[in-house]
Amino acid sequence: MSEMNIPQSSFPRVIIIGGGFGGIALAKKLARKEVQVILLDKHNYHTFQPLLYQVSTGGLEPDSIAYPIRKVLQGYSNFFFRLAEVLQVDTSAQTLQTNIGKIAYDYLVVATGSETNFFGNQNIMENSMAMKSIPQSLNLRSLILENFEQALLTDDLHERDALMNFVIVGGGPTGVELAGALAEIKKGILPKDYPDLDTRRAQINLVQSGDRILPAMSPVASEKAEKFLEKLGVQVWKNTRVSDYDGKTIATNTDTTFDAATLVWAAGVKAVTLKGLDAETLLKRGGRLPVNAFHQVEGFENIFAIGDVAQMTSEEFPKGHPMMAQPAIQQGESLGNNLLHLIENKEMQPFAYKDKGSMATVGRNKAVVDLKSFKFQGVFAWYVWMFVHLYFLIGFRNRVVVFINWVYNYIKFDREARLIIRPFKKTYKVSERSEVV
Amino acid sequence: MSEMNIPQSSFPRVIIIGGGFGGIALAKKLARKEVQVILLDKHNYHTFQPLLYQVSTGGLEPDSIAYPIRKVLQGYSNFFFRLAEVLQVDTSAQTLQTNIGKIAYDYLVVATGSETNFFGNQNIMENSMAMKSIPQSLNLRSLILENFEQALLTDDLHERDALMNFVIVGGGPTGVELAGALAEIKKGILPKDYPDLDTRRAQINLVQSGDRILPAMSPVASEKAEKFLEKLGVQVWKNTRVSDYDGKTIATNTDTTFDAATLVWAAGVKAVTLKGLDAETLLKRGGRLPVNAFHQVEGFENIFAIGDVAQMTSEEFPKGHPMMAQPAIQQGESLGNNLLHLIENKEMQPFAYKDKGSMATVGRNKAVVDLKSFKFQGVFAWYVWMFVHLYFLIGFRNRVVVFINWVYNYIKFDREARLIIRPFKKTYKVSERSEVV
Repeated sequence: MSEMNIPQSSFPRVIIIGGGFGGIALAKKLARKEVQVILLDKHNYHTFQPLLYQVSTGGLEPDSIAYPIRKVLQGYSNFFFRLAEVLQVDTSAQTLQTNIGKIAYDYLVVATGSETNFFGNQNIMENSMAMKSIPQSLNLRSLILENFEQALLTDDLHERDALMNFVIVGGGPTGVELAGALAEIKKGILPKDYPDLDTRRAQINLVQSGDRILPAMSPVASEKAEKFLEKLGVQVWKNTRVSDYDGKTIATNTDTTFDAATLVWAAGVKAVTLKGLDAETLLKRGGRLPVNAFHQVEGFENIFAIGDVAQMTSEEFPKGHPMMAQPAIQQGESLGNNLLHLIENKEMQPFAYKDKGSMATVGRNKAVVDLKSFKFQGVFAWYVWMFVHLYFLIGFRNRVVVFINWVYNYIKFDREARLIIRPFKKTYKVSERSEVV
Repeated sequence: MSEMNIPQSSFPRVIIIGGGFGGIALAKKLARKEVQVILLDKHNYHTFQPLLYQVSTGGLEPDSIAYPIRKVLQGYSNFFFRLAEVLQVDTSAQTLQTNIGKIAYDYLVVATGSETNFFGNQNIMENSMAMKSIPQSLNLRSLILENFEQALLTDDLHERDALMNFVIVGGGPTGVELAGALAEIKKGILPKDYPDLDTRRAQINLVQSGDRILPAMSPVASEKAEKFLEKLGVQVWKNTRVSDYDGKTIATNTDTTFDAATLVWAAGVKAVTLKGLDAETLLKRGGRLPVNAFHQVEGFENIFAIGDVAQMTSEEFPKGHPMMAQPAIQQGESLGNNLLHLIENKEMQPFAYKDKGSMATVGRNKAVVDLKSFKFQGVFAWYVWMFVHLYFLIGFRNRVVVFINWVYNYIKFDREARLIIRPFKKTYKVSERSEVV
């Protein structure tokens, strides 16, 4: 395998795999320091995942929640970006094999994040929609719109209902926010866009395995979010596990079934593992890499993991930190400092997670916020949610464009990015289903 | 074939095929009138084609130059939109066959526009990029970025140069504007994004068959635009026809050849024809439908054509009106009035084209404008160009978002939508080429 084309440097070489929240935060810390930094990612952009559901529902353009990675690294002569997929890590030779060649590292940082976890259910994986990346979110946007266009064409009421039945599995922030957005589309846009379709029959179902939605938040947030959703017309199914989906009918562990053309799977994530670092003895629950308080992967001194892929356990977090943006950002910053300490033979500082709280929006004027000492819900929470998301969005232009879209959508009860630019073309037909049965 | 699911109406039924400039202008004229209007389009959005080159070059998001057709038609109870492809017209039965069923019309309006004309050259069609639709423009955006990522990976200087060699065929506004935008990217973005690549070697070539670029504009505009391009570093090849492209080497009618990974074909368009209305005896040059001064297709009283697909000849326009937005919009409006006259048995008014002038932008602070009595070039022309494009863009939100992007891009010398969201994956390898030869 050929060598990757990167200039030699007298500085130690740090390779970061992944340009998500953790990888970018780390890279920024290493800017203009005496290290050579190589960032590898499959995409040439950073994705602001918390707003993917707004892309799926036509509220925001994909381009305004993505940011070119090269632009983040602009102006730092010690930085190199390569669009590459890592195929394997050779920890003894300290090299990576990628689809664009081999490369040696002095320090390796795994920041590969997480992907949708279908828990081994092949049927669900093949027939449902995931929402962890921009292309996936655009596919979902196309499918939602195609469903309504198709619903217009049939006289079969059962088929029409199934095309307008959206089942979201997973009561975390992603599921809750998507359900809320769909409910607002049903209320504000569908009657105007489809006057010749009885869109009151459209259904939004949110299915949650546990006994409350937003289980990582406070009980009062869960309760309030559920009330908000019900007010918007979302049906919340608690203590219900989806067990199968053939593309037509969704089966659960209870008597409830759903005939639906669309199943959005937001029920779990798992770490993205790397060949060479995926020994069963090494990996923890969800495929996460166990790391010590200095982000070092168990058994290695020069291999680190941060973000969703890392599991740093403590008394407070026996299962590791939540798989969210905040821990990833803080870990990236912490590792940046520790790496420089390690190289300079200074003492590393153990990571301490500062819980800045968590939040979820349910829809127009409706959000829930949990801070350490203060929990609140409603309009003010909604403003806080918007402010925080704008603040953490990368790029000034993105912030302005997102802000303007939000103001416009709010005033006009609208979402103008309802475009089928690349059709997803999943067809749903009752007739086909009967053949299957 | 099943019937399309549209309610019967006591009003005469007008079917418009195509939601471009002409179709939308016509539809607006028929709002709240005593006709049933059915608009059919392959896409659920209207495309503002004059700004496609900015999507290809990362200056604008695709969503801000597209507009949901359903939103244009919102609130008019006599309007129906269907996402459909028309397969055939049966002019004697007065029906259309589409991929979603059959439908009868009282009046038919063909507003199908135009597509890229490769003049029958299969090699060029397979290996070059077109830029007539949003998906095509996004493919070109991906390819441009992928080329630079790939150029980083090779030590073969010839291959690297070819990956950074962009050849645009066609010296009309599309070719000129794309060449200018690429030249600005080369100057403002490439050196910052690719510090480890000698991007000064990137080339932008504009190939024009005639003896001047912008041949539809005044000689002074052509001359000035060429000067602007040369100042930006674009090489303009006049009196040169591209004759072949195998994906590696571009052959011309002269001794000049180009080794290039990217050929953008903007050298011509042809009307999109419809089966049943495509008799050789009927069609004119470029596949256009001959229409009389009331937009009636030759030989029919209730079939009309407007925009690029229509050819209305006159003393002033012996080859028909230019295939541009302005004639399409004016024809749509004129036909709207005439259709209502026809239905009410009033006299129709012959169409008279008001030439509002033409313009093209070459880059930052550089444009050329031809008005009837006044021709000007430079900064003021550039402001006029921007104002006119914002004015004709559909949708308030789109205008604001485009305006903000332009201001941002101007101040920062930047284009942030440089994202490879769906890779195009055209690979260019010198080694492969040698095998072919």
